[in-house]
Amino acid sequence: MGLDFQLLNSTPTGGRRAALHLPHKTVQTPVFMPVGTAGSVKAVPQDVLESLGSEIILGNTYHLYLRPGHEAIRRMGGLHKFISWPRALLTDSGGFQVFSLAQLRKVSDEGVQFRSHLDGSSHLFTPEHSMDVQIALGADICMAFDECTEYPAERSRAEESLRLTMAWAQRSLTHFRAHQHEVPWRAEFPGRSQSLFGIVQGGMYRDLRRQSAERLVEMDQKGSSGAGSGFDGYAIGGLSVGEPRDLTLEMISEVLPLLPANKPRYVMGVGYPDEIEQYARMGVDMMDCVLPTRAARHGLLFTSEGRLNIKGRRFAEDQAPPDPACQCMVCRRYSRAYLRHLMQAGEPLSATLNTIHNLAYYLGIMQRVRDSLNPQT
Amino acid sequence: MGLDFQLLNSTPTGGRRAALHLPHKTVQTPVFMPVGTAGSVKAVPQDVLESLGSEIILGNTYHLYLRPGHEAIRRMGGLHKFISWPRALLTDSGGFQVFSLAQLRKVSDEGVQFRSHLDGSSHLFTPEHSMDVQIALGADICMAFDECTEYPAERSRAEESLRLTMAWAQRSLTHFRAHQHEVPWRAEFPGRSQSLFGIVQGGMYRDLRRQSAERLVEMDQKGSSGAGSGFDGYAIGGLSVGEPRDLTLEMISEVLPLLPANKPRYVMGVGYPDEIEQYARMGVDMMDCVLPTRAARHGLLFTSEGRLNIKGRRFAEDQAPPDPACQCMVCRRYSRAYLRHLMQAGEPLSATLNTIHNLAYYLGIMQRVRDSLNPQT
Repeated sequence: MGLDFQLLNSTPTGGRRAALHLPHKTVQTPVFMPVGTAGSVKAVPQDVLESLGSEIILGNTYHLYLRPGHEAIRRMGGLHKFISWPRALLTDSGGFQVFSLAQLRKVSDEGVQFRSHLDGSSHLFTPEHSMDVQIALGADICMAFDECTEYPAERSRAEESLRLTMAWAQRSLTHFRAHQHEVPWRAEFPGRSQSLFGIVQGGMYRDLRRQSAERLVEMDQKGSSGAGSGFDGYAIGGLSVGEPRDLTLEMISEVLPLLPANKPRYVMGVGYPDEIEQYARMGVDMMDCVLPTRAARHGLLFTSEGRLNIKGRRFAEDQAPPDPACQCMVCRRYSRAYLRHLMQAGEPLSATLNTIHNLAYYLGIMQRVRDSLNPQT
Repeated sequence: MGLDFQLLNSTPTGGRRAALHLPHKTVQTPVFMPVGTAGSVKAVPQDVLESLGSEIILGNTYHLYLRPGHEAIRRMGGLHKFISWPRALLTDSGGFQVFSLAQLRKVSDEGVQFRSHLDGSSHLFTPEHSMDVQIALGADICMAFDECTEYPAERSRAEESLRLTMAWAQRSLTHFRAHQHEVPWRAEFPGRSQSLFGIVQGGMYRDLRRQSAERLVEMDQKGSSGAGSGFDGYAIGGLSVGEPRDLTLEMISEVLPLLPANKPRYVMGVGYPDEIEQYARMGVDMMDCVLPTRAARHGLLFTSEGRLNIKGRRFAEDQAPPDPACQCMVCRRYSRAYLRHLMQAGEPLSATLNTIHNLAYYLGIMQRVRDSLNPQT
């Protein structure tokens, strides 16, 4: 069994409270997942992530494939062991980074030929290869290999991109089901397996989104009609790529009702604090975003009083905590003046403390949403 | 009262075990003091320093004077409050950094005129000014303003440098005693005050070192012959500046017997793990060095099996802890392979984890030395 999605409560407006049982951890949803690109949520030690209440984090397949390499990670027992993260992990397909980071891309039906942004070496990612890499990494949840349609995109471009993504989704699923027994932690978790999510694309075209969702939901392991051979969950990708926010919302609203209620729904790459709260209340179970971590390294703090650019001169002697309403280990101990000083002085502790606060803020939002979605007892 | 140095045990070979009672913390000696240059032990959060058992850390007066400024720190209640470090602090005099970092230095009997390495602005450090800055910072222990004689130095140069340092020591002491009541935490610690250490210089000339030590020990607050108006402790400076190690040892051996047994002795800026153990066993009570923290950021780990350059290819799939004999939070959780990967990938977590281990190693050495120096009961 891959995942067990235990729905605990639903609200009339679509919000849902669930427990997502994964091999390495039961994750309380709706959940925000910090991004650990190259096997580290930048600047934050794993024990701090645990104490912040992170139950699942992301790894990026593209980065880990290039360095240190998925075969090395497999030999070391998988990503959980390699990075010493015993809780749940999700890996993306590598598709998004191939399109945003790699050089000299050549897309064909087969897959994407690209050059590494690290050393210029040449690589081919196909749906099958992405599955092999993700199985070697051994995350609890893997993602189908897709093409993230850029914004804006002409309809013909969005259609062609969707055609590719749908073909790749089927190939991902077939290859994943045929090889998922190769996951490195198989012997440690008898009867448990990785899960695979399909990704809804279609640019900003409602009918393409609809088509994408419907086809994914119908998709099954090729040549099999057995129950449970389809995707274990569904993601909505290709959002937060520069479009206005009402368009993001429109696409999510269009797709959510088409996805099966008994499987988790994941919106990829969102968002600002008010966005993640809004989407969670609409019935999105999982979200991830580099925003809280990346913004932190640039001195942007999310607080109950709004955004704070901690570099500002006005904080030079401000002895208040970054967010007076926050109980995180940073807000309990350090002042705005000190955080500002650390940035000004280029101290590495700056990234660590800022990131811890921002993650605490994001995880706190989701905790409050979960509390409000809990069944009334 | 500044400090109370409570000698607990002495060994025939000169080693001593003591409790150094300071206003903010009782420090068990011999002690190694991590360096927190600009108000942060680079890449390590304060709570981790506490859990490592650090009882006292250093701040650099030169850095903090330039940024964020000692007056700002005074207005915020002093350095302890500003950086949220409730335990003991020591600040150096700024002299060493003026000579090693600042530009366009002009030394006179009055002091040192220099340009900031940050913005080229012009500043004058005198003994009196160094004391004012250190009183504003409010460390438990301050250091007299000195000139660190470079190595190698001709005898005439060492003599002239020593003449300056001795004159500055007297001026430091006089000004410090006249103004130490201005420390920002005065009301919080009734009856307690900062302490001031004199610094023995003299280059690599035994007789100059001897002369320096004897004159410092005799030195008193000008115009007073009252008890307790001299220095509260003595440091040996100007070592670890490029000289061969047997010369370092020779200078320490020459000076130690000249220093009063009832006051703490501090050797500045040393050293490698075997050095700090050796000096501690000879009767040095306090040491500081950037080596464990700086080396960590370059991937050099100190372990019970010797030095480990964690960047090495041979660690790529080495799942052993950095130091199998170490019980620190890094060695208990992470592998050499992971630490190597973090460095390769330029992950900020690399500096944090490497530094935590190196500090644990240094502090562990001193803990073992203290245990072996404890009175036999």
